[in-house]
Amino acid sequence: MGIAVIHGSSRKNGNTDQLARLLVEGFEADHIYLADYRIEPIVDYRHSEKRPYPDDDYRNVLERVLAQDVLVFTTPIYWYGPSGLTKTFIDRWSQSLRENKEPFLAALRAKSAWVLAVGDDEPHLKGIPLIQQFQHIFGYTGTNYAGYIIGKGNKPGDIVQDTVALAAVEAVRQQWTLERRTLT
Amino acid sequence: MGIAVIHGSSRKNGNTDQLARLLVEGFEADHIYLADYRIEPIVDYRHSEKRPYPDDDYRNVLERVLAQDVLVFTTPIYWYGPSGLTKTFIDRWSQSLRENKEPFLAALRAKSAWVLAVGDDEPHLKGIPLIQQFQHIFGYTGTNYAGYIIGKGNKPGDIVQDTVALAAVEAVRQQWTLERRTLT
Amino acid sequence: MGIAVIHGSSRKNGNTDQLARLLVEGFEADHIYLADYRIEPIVDYRHSEKRPYPDDDYRNVLERVLAQDVLVFTTPIYWYGPSGLTKTFIDRWSQSLRENKEPFLAALRAKSAWVLAVGDDEPHLKGIPLIQQFQHIFGYTGTNYAGYIIGKGNKPGDIVQDTVALAAVEAVRQQWTLERRTLT
Amino acid sequence: MGIAVIHGSSRKNGNTDQLARLLVEGFEADHIYLADYRIEPIVDYRHSEKRPYPDDDYRNVLERVLAQDVLVFTTPIYWYGPSGLTKTFIDRWSQSLRENKEPFLAALRAKSAWVLAVGDDEPHLKGIPLIQQFQHIFGYTGTNYAGYIIGKGNKPGDIVQDTVALAAVEAVRQQWTLERRTLT
Repeated sequence: MGIAVIHGSSRKNGNTDQLARLLVEGFEADHIYLADYRIEPIVDYRHSEKRPYPDDDYRNVLERVLAQDVLVFTTPIYWYGPSGLTKTFIDRWSQSLRENKEPFLAALRAKSAWVLAVGDDEPHLKGIPLIQQFQHIFGYTGTNYAGYIIGKGNKPGDIVQDTVALAAVEAVRQQWTLERRTLT
Repeated sequence: MGIAVIHGSSRKNGNTDQLARLLVEGFEADHIYLADYRIEPIVDYRHSEKRPYPDDDYRNVLERVLAQDVLVFTTPIYWYGPSGLTKTFIDRWSQSLRENKEPFLAALRAKSAWVLAVGDDEPHLKGIPLIQQFQHIFGYTGTNYAGYIIGKGNKPGDIVQDTVALAAVEAVRQQWTLERRTLT
Repeated sequence: MGIAVIHGSSRKNGNTDQLARLLVEGFEADHIYLADYRIEPIVDYRHSEKRPYPDDDYRNVLERVLAQDVLVFTTPIYWYGPSGLTKTFIDRWSQSLRENKEPFLAALRAKSAWVLAVGDDEPHLKGIPLIQQFQHIFGYTGTNYAGYIIGKGNKPGDIVQDTVALAAVEAVRQQWTLERRTLT
Repeated sequence: MGIAVIHGSSRKNGNTDQLARLLVEGFEADHIYLADYRIEPIVDYRHSEKRPYPDDDYRNVLERVLAQDVLVFTTPIYWYGPSGLTKTFIDRWSQSLRENKEPFLAALRAKSAWVLAVGDDEPHLKGIPLIQQFQHIFGYTGTNYAGYIIGKGNKPGDIVQDTVALAAVEAVRQQWTLERRTLT
């Protein structure tokens, strides 16, 4: 069982990053920091002549994502939604829908996905639109939305005080450990 | 009464654009197509040494937005949320919160905002996270969330068949006409 | 095409009632005012010995509901959800799931349902949980969630000022008129 | 610190009940099982002549609720919302708003409230409307929405397998223990 951790934060070592690393520690994980790549906004060619899509890092990043069995989208809650980095990456899926729809959806249907979001302003209430947005995204792609973890934190290190988030992390890890045993 | 129309679509003349133009026709409006500008993702310096923010079009675009009394955020519903262009622009508000928090919030508190979103996949249900995300955004900035319009459309021109969206557009226009008279 | 209007308000001639009557005027409609009937709260016998369900009006009301092709749930937004009358009626569907699950679900799968909700406190934002609750209800029963109409009103008669709600009513009526023609 | 546990389930000893008892064990708690009382649906007299409200158990139950500092609303997720028993009780708050608005709201403003909801069908996603409904309820009354716990369970006893819910319960208990010490 390999895990793609798709980091949407603009910086490393923040609370979101820290919680994500606790989550996947000891599992085979490919950490993909979107901030390290150039991914342009989607251009919508659905109803116009098709021109080349941006020649940037999208395809390489996507390939790494699709190479794993489990997806973990981690994002700080920026303005009550996923970060622009995360959203722009997902917007580009529309390009993959045009370029090779069936294999792309088949790949996503075979995966389980988790969302890990950390925020400061009542994240358990005001993070709900983010959680529901991923519900519809995974509903469309047919990906199994295995669950989500909401953490609360602002200053670096806050997250390790969030006992509920840590318990949720531990519960997911136990589930993965069982699945890994079953697969072996 | 001046209106800033902040277009989040990647292309002009689509359904979202068309509905937005019906909405503001005859009113003083500044059409800002985010796709025409370079706006980089936010970098989060809240808890690290402050370095320069990207030297891109953000400040100019923001200035035009804040120069108007009414904000209309128009976006196609991309993956059940605002477009990456829209989200990245709003993420950058965090920069303004650091650079000049009080004047920035004071400016936003004085404005009314509308959201106009067009989607194809059950937009009145699956567009709800987008609507709620803006609810929390405007709740934070103190901006009056005057209302929203959801349209349904996929192929170009679909939108003019959406009689409910057109009626909502008309109702907003009537309200603006009354307000304009009152202000004069 | 017959319509069952399931009125959840505690009183007649209020805004919700008025909007519902505008909606179905001229169509064959059975108006069911839940307040006129005695419907007890559900008792959950799923995991205990089965005892008789309350001997009240539930079965008669349900029979009338299931006799029609289209369901319109109308409810004032009480405390940001459907009225207790509406909720208690739907809770009793759990009884029908125990008593004759397959025919009950087959009946509901064959229907289209609308929700009409009127509230005073930002109903287009704070009525969202109500709208989503029905989304999950109809998702479970397999009923086609054809749409919803949110109205704004407090004092009697307010609703006829809500031009957007009236336009939505008109759009649904046109749709029904077309369907009726097609069926004939 | 006294806790009013307002049980909305139709039966005792179910998963919801069990989780609620784990939550408050060792704290001073008044367990109020709404199913034990007769509480009629609200009648809306806002715009008609005032007649007597139902002579039932509402006032006694409310008095017990308001006598405590902390409110815990526990409800199974019935049809993706609070149970009819819970909803009907809250609907009757409209009566209290008419009878003695200011003292009633002042009492609710002084309280903290928790919601504990247990469901079987993807409760962390499909229970969201319930969570948001309480957000708006407490927003209106000015009650501090201290948090919520969602549990997953169907068959009796399932709930003790839900390690995330149990961790959330433990985190709330620790918080209460600290508050109790502070108060003493």
